[in-house]
Amino acid sequence: MSSKKYVVIPAGGRGVRMGSELPKQFLEINGKPVLRHTIEKFLSAFGDDISIILVLPSDMRAYWRKYCTDNHFLERYILVQGGITRFHSVQNALGYVDEGSIVAVHDGVRPIVSAGMIQRLFAEAETCPAVVPALPMVESLREIFEDGSSVSVDRSRFVAVQTPQVFRADVIRKAYGQAYSQSFTDDATVVQACGYPVRLVPGERTNIKITTREDLESAALLLG
Amino acid sequence: MSSKKYVVIPAGGRGVRMGSELPKQFLEINGKPVLRHTIEKFLSAFGDDISIILVLPSDMRAYWRKYCTDNHFLERYILVQGGITRFHSVQNALGYVDEGSIVAVHDGVRPIVSAGMIQRLFAEAETCPAVVPALPMVESLREIFEDGSSVSVDRSRFVAVQTPQVFRADVIRKAYGQAYSQSFTDDATVVQACGYPVRLVPGERTNIKITTREDLESAALLLG
Repeated sequence: MSSKKYVVIPAGGRGVRMGSELPKQFLEINGKPVLRHTIEKFLSAFGDDISIILVLPSDMRAYWRKYCTDNHFLERYILVQGGITRFHSVQNALGYVDEGSIVAVHDGVRPIVSAGMIQRLFAEAETCPAVVPALPMVESLREIFEDGSSVSVDRSRFVAVQTPQVFRADVIRKAYGQAYSQSFTDDATVVQACGYPVRLVPGERTNIKITTREDLESAALLLG
Repeated sequence: MSSKKYVVIPAGGRGVRMGSELPKQFLEINGKPVLRHTIEKFLSAFGDDISIILVLPSDMRAYWRKYCTDNHFLERYILVQGGITRFHSVQNALGYVDEGSIVAVHDGVRPIVSAGMIQRLFAEAETCPAVVPALPMVESLREIFEDGSSVSVDRSRFVAVQTPQVFRADVIRKAYGQAYSQSFTDDATVVQACGYPVRLVPGERTNIKITTREDLESAALLLG
């Protein structure tokens, strides 16, 4: 029997790069908020077998509740108070997770993740404490120095990390019990700092993170 | 008066990653080969004011000539023999470039580059010997070690480099007079190894390099 499943979506960003009043996870693509597209991918992967934990800043929680009610979307979900950083937001969310479950953490602004990839990552996490999707670098890489100069670096040494990152509940809860460090750039970093190995598995090129208006336009095309 | 303009397109790849007989620059998107979409962007930026230099493997040159004739596309272009590596292909092409001109080198499999970005890069190259489009990393980066382990690295230290990379003709010709080195991963590397500074300017997120069938599908959507 497979383990109980959760996805934590720390959608606390204020979207300052978008030049928009509304945080970017609430902007609409093809008539639906980005965050709704994202959640629908997890429902499409597991239906009622996955619990959705949303972390939102306090001023956006009422907004989201009203959206769900008005649009008859997502009757059953856990809404958690956002923290001062992404780390603190995920930490708050993990308080709602059962022992023995598998927990994904996913960016609210990655709505193009496929149901197949989500299923594949959860299956891997049954046998590995931490599973992280990553892609080889297609572009040449340059390292930038403080004086503005740059040098080429060997791109084959690096991979680009995506979400969802998927963990055994005991592992991620223990990891998030550590004191906060600015070096925690994603969940894999937190878990690895706690001494657990991280397994990299293939991500998807289309699983883009929406950070600019240009990304929003690409996402609209990719979501068809 | 602005300088004479060239674009060198070293489209010599055999597309082994695509699982296709035909090299990927000849696969069709929305009824046209990828390479044609790419060339049309440069024509759309500068019309007759830019000369197109294509570098193709010998067995693909007849194929391309027939395509152009049958489809009444691109009456005027320079077709150059591909070399044993990309370096040697570009080196061959630079023999056809006039002194005092500005030369772009662009991947044949980046058909989504915008005419506006092409114009902006050529304008920058009027005052700078080497102009290279680059983007900040949106994804977290991990460095991979030989034992399969990986560590998070600070993504703000790196940028992803795109094409077209645009150069003063005298600079890129002198740079390509150097002996070949395996460390030459792109034209900027070659020019910098010759002692010239490289100016990084903003690239475009949508300017993807088509390396997989998934990329081809994304490109079809983005090219509308």
